[in-house]
Amino acid sequence: MREHLTIIKVGGKVVEEPESLKSLLKDFSRIAGHKILVHGGGKTATHLAEQLGIESKMVEGRRITDAETLKVVIMVYAGLVNKTVVAGLQSLGTNAIGLTGADLDIIRAEKRPVGDIDYGFVGDIKRINNSSMFELINMGAVPVVAPITHDSKGQLLNTNADTIASELAVSMSYEFDVRLVFCFEKPGVLLNEADDKSVIGEITPDLFEKYKAEGVVSGGMIPKLHNGFNALKQGVGAIVITNPQGLTGGLRGTRLLLKS
Amino acid sequence: MREHLTIIKVGGKVVEEPESLKSLLKDFSRIAGHKILVHGGGKTATHLAEQLGIESKMVEGRRITDAETLKVVIMVYAGLVNKTVVAGLQSLGTNAIGLTGADLDIIRAEKRPVGDIDYGFVGDIKRINNSSMFELINMGAVPVVAPITHDSKGQLLNTNADTIASELAVSMSYEFDVRLVFCFEKPGVLLNEADDKSVIGEITPDLFEKYKAEGVVSGGMIPKLHNGFNALKQGVGAIVITNPQGLTGGLRGTRLLLKS
Repeated sequence: MREHLTIIKVGGKVVEEPESLKSLLKDFSRIAGHKILVHGGGKTATHLAEQLGIESKMVEGRRITDAETLKVVIMVYAGLVNKTVVAGLQSLGTNAIGLTGADLDIIRAEKRPVGDIDYGFVGDIKRINNSSMFELINMGAVPVVAPITHDSKGQLLNTNADTIASELAVSMSYEFDVRLVFCFEKPGVLLNEADDKSVIGEITPDLFEKYKAEGVVSGGMIPKLHNGFNALKQGVGAIVITNPQGLTGGLRGTRLLLKS
Repeated sequence: MREHLTIIKVGGKVVEEPESLKSLLKDFSRIAGHKILVHGGGKTATHLAEQLGIESKMVEGRRITDAETLKVVIMVYAGLVNKTVVAGLQSLGTNAIGLTGADLDIIRAEKRPVGDIDYGFVGDIKRINNSSMFELINMGAVPVVAPITHDSKGQLLNTNADTIASELAVSMSYEFDVRLVFCFEKPGVLLNEADDKSVIGEITPDLFEKYKAEGVVSGGMIPKLHNGFNALKQGVGAIVITNPQGLTGGLRGTRLLLKS
């Protein structure tokens, strides 16, 4: 029987506000077995960019990453947010290690080709170094992954954290029974955005298409669900979208299923 | 026979200017056997603090680290400088992994007590986690250590990079035959600061006292040599002060000896 591995992706306010971060790290620490945390940090990056007079340009929720913006996201994601999370987890007895894709060559990416839009220093994942991840996990370490990758030629790149979490989940499925949790402010995918009690319990690709057409799911939730269904098709055991409260006492929230 | 481990501490302009960094990383990559790189990043931190309107206060070359300054040094040391070095080394085939003291609980420190001077969030090293360092090194990883530690209660701390390098060298001497190299802009300790050819080949504690009294050594070199002699007394095999050019083709520069 294969061992379990839980991959939690946290983003939004959850990871950037001291109180919600503290409670998240407590809940994360209580999860039994092997685990990986993947985090964002976009709001802090936008704030720092503002302070430095660098304009944040977003296209469909994706950040255009020019050379100055790249420095900002490296400082915020790989520096401030990553190390704050690592120190917080260590204080709770979880043996965290902060990583970007460059560390141990864990995630290699290539700079996105310039098409209609020039995303700048944004990386699309090419390869995950499973053996180094397995070695770290088997030594009892808990990887905390910042959404920065590299091209193996010395260039760091900005990569979407949801995508990193999904690709890691697929890759780790060769060795572990993986469950992937997207953890954000809401208790799941909501039928009515204003009502936190309207959580959709299960969602299939067919329902996803229906909800998309109806405008029930929109914005950043669309690529998140796309990533999720792709990961499910490629062997990830379970995928759930929830908030930090949903992590404890059994996993609540919206479960992705290939068929109902 | 014990295996060799080379610990290189780089600071000053060497690590912060693209051209000199590139050449340093090439030279570092060529060093055979196990190795660790410890880096600073003070000039970049001072520059970022300036841009953010945070005043940099120094006392005897040590940075007073208030809460805002701590964020800056975490972003610069653990983020920008550390990951730039890691990605650069990966591009040269060196399997670098960036670490702060919080990662894998490698370096635990305590906040310096407030005496005549309140240094703020500055950490004095309490304990080095040898077993995790040995595990990383034995898996073929090359640790790149940023001068940030933690107190194991969730607080990150700013710690002098020379001190980290010395304490790591002492600690690693339990397992390895360690040589410690302080690498900076000058080819060694100079008899005449204006003459790069006046390198002192060997320096003992007696000579150090003499040079100190004569003003030949001053400023940041004094704690560097203090750290070095302490490390030597505690079992470090060899200590050398040099510049990047001194790293190749045998180790040139100033060698610290307990007696001549």
